[in-house]
Amino acid sequence: MEIITSVNNNHIKELCKLKEKKYRDSTNTFLIEGEHLIYEAYKEGLLEEILPLIGEDFSMDTKTTFISKEVMKKLSSTDSIINVIGVCSKRKEREIGNKILILEDIQDPGNLGTIIRSSLAFGVDTVVLSPKTVDLYNSKVLRSTQGMIFHINIIVKELVSFIEELKSNSYMIYGTKVDGGINIKNIDIKDKYALVIGNEGKGMSSSVESLCDKNLYIDMDNNVESLNAGVAASILLYEMRNK
Amino acid sequence: MEIITSVNNNHIKELCKLKEKKYRDSTNTFLIEGEHLIYEAYKEGLLEEILPLIGEDFSMDTKTTFISKEVMKKLSSTDSIINVIGVCSKRKEREIGNKILILEDIQDPGNLGTIIRSSLAFGVDTVVLSPKTVDLYNSKVLRSTQGMIFHINIIVKELVSFIEELKSNSYMIYGTKVDGGINIKNIDIKDKYALVIGNEGKGMSSSVESLCDKNLYIDMDNNVESLNAGVAASILLYEMRNK
Repeated sequence: MEIITSVNNNHIKELCKLKEKKYRDSTNTFLIEGEHLIYEAYKEGLLEEILPLIGEDFSMDTKTTFISKEVMKKLSSTDSIINVIGVCSKRKEREIGNKILILEDIQDPGNLGTIIRSSLAFGVDTVVLSPKTVDLYNSKVLRSTQGMIFHINIIVKELVSFIEELKSNSYMIYGTKVDGGINIKNIDIKDKYALVIGNEGKGMSSSVESLCDKNLYIDMDNNVESLNAGVAASILLYEMRNK
Repeated sequence: MEIITSVNNNHIKELCKLKEKKYRDSTNTFLIEGEHLIYEAYKEGLLEEILPLIGEDFSMDTKTTFISKEVMKKLSSTDSIINVIGVCSKRKEREIGNKILILEDIQDPGNLGTIIRSSLAFGVDTVVLSPKTVDLYNSKVLRSTQGMIFHINIIVKELVSFIEELKSNSYMIYGTKVDGGINIKNIDIKDKYALVIGNEGKGMSSSVESLCDKNLYIDMDNNVESLNAGVAASILLYEMRNK
C-alpha cells in the first residue's frame, strides 16, 4: 500500500497534468472525483487507480495510493472536500449504432452533462461531439453526467465529413430550428437517424444545416425565445424514443 | 445626467447591498446585468434605473446614471465585462391561475433558471418556490432564465400549507417519483393542477409527498438513475401542456 504526502512527488505531478486537455488527449486518461463516479467507472472496467485520503476506508480491486489532504487539494478541481480521486482510461470507440446524437459546439459543461444523461435515458447509441464542443473530460462535465459518461459511446468528429458519411449509409439527418421546420409531435422518425443540436447561442452552423434532411422544433408559447439547449435536446430525444 | 466614478459613493454603496438576499427582500429590488435582461425588464415596466459604463450609447426612458469601470466592477457579479447594470423592482404577485409548478428546495441556479424558461414555454401560470429554494434573484439564476423571469408569476410559499389550500380549492396535486407512480404518457391531466418537483438529490420531502394525489414518472432506460431535475420538470410540463 503506497502513501504519498508530498505534492512534489513525481507521480502526483504527472497526474496533475491531467487537468489539461492536451495531457488527457495524449495519455487517453482523465481524473474523476468522488465515490459515485469511481464506482461507475469501476463497473465499466475503466478505473486504473484510486487515490483515497489517508484514513479513508477504501478497498477496491484496483491500484490504490493513499494521499494527504494537501495532495488531494492539489489534484482536485473543487474547493469542496472530496475523499477519493480516481484515474480512468477513456472508453474505446464502439460501433456507432442506429440512433446518433450530434452536438455542434455545445459550450456549457452542465448542458453537455445533462444531455449525456438524457441520451442514455432515451436510448441513444452514440453521442458525437464537434471538436469545438466543451471537453468531455472537463471536471464540471464529468460531475454533471453523474457517472453516465461511462455507459455510452461518445466520440469526437469533424461534423461535415461525418454527417456526409452517415448520409451515404442511409441515416436520416434531423436538424433543429426554433423557427420553421416540423413539429416533433407530427413526424415519423426513421429507424436510422442522427439528430443535430447546435450551439447554445448560435444554433447550427450553415454548413451543418445544409446537410440536414429535415428540421424539427418543439411547440411552445410565443413569448419564449428558446428553451435551454439541454432541455430542447432532451425533449426531442424523449419524443424520438417513443415514436 | 449623473456620472459616478467613486466606489465610495453612497448610492453605489446602497446598490452593492443588493448582492445580499436580505437587502433584496427588504427593498423588493434586485440588480440585473447586461442589455438583454434590461430590455426584458423594461418591457414589463419593472426597470427602475440603469447604470451604463461611461461612454456607452444608452438612452432609455428610465433614470440613468453613468458609471466608471471601477464602479461597474464593484456592482457586477461576474469577471466578464458588462456594459450596463440595472435596478429592478420585483414583480407583484398575481392570481395563481390553474397550472401551477411547485419546486421544493431546488438548489442549482442553472436548474431553476432552466425550469423557469420551460414553465413559460409550456404554459405554466405560476411557479411556487419553497423558502429553501435557491434565491430567484441570485445573479446566476437571473442569467440562466434569459430574462424569462419577468414574464411569469413566481411566488415563495411554505409548501405544506400552500398545497393544502390548493387541495381545498380542487387542484389535483401531482408528485414526481423515479420509482413507482404513473407514466406521464398514460394519464389524463386535470384542468386545475399543481406539479411538484423535488430537490435534486433528495426528491420530495415526505410531508409534501403525502399530500400528492398521484405520482408521475418519465419512462426511460433502466441503467439511468435519474434525469437532470431541470430536464425532468421540462419533459413533464411539455407532456402536460399537450394533454
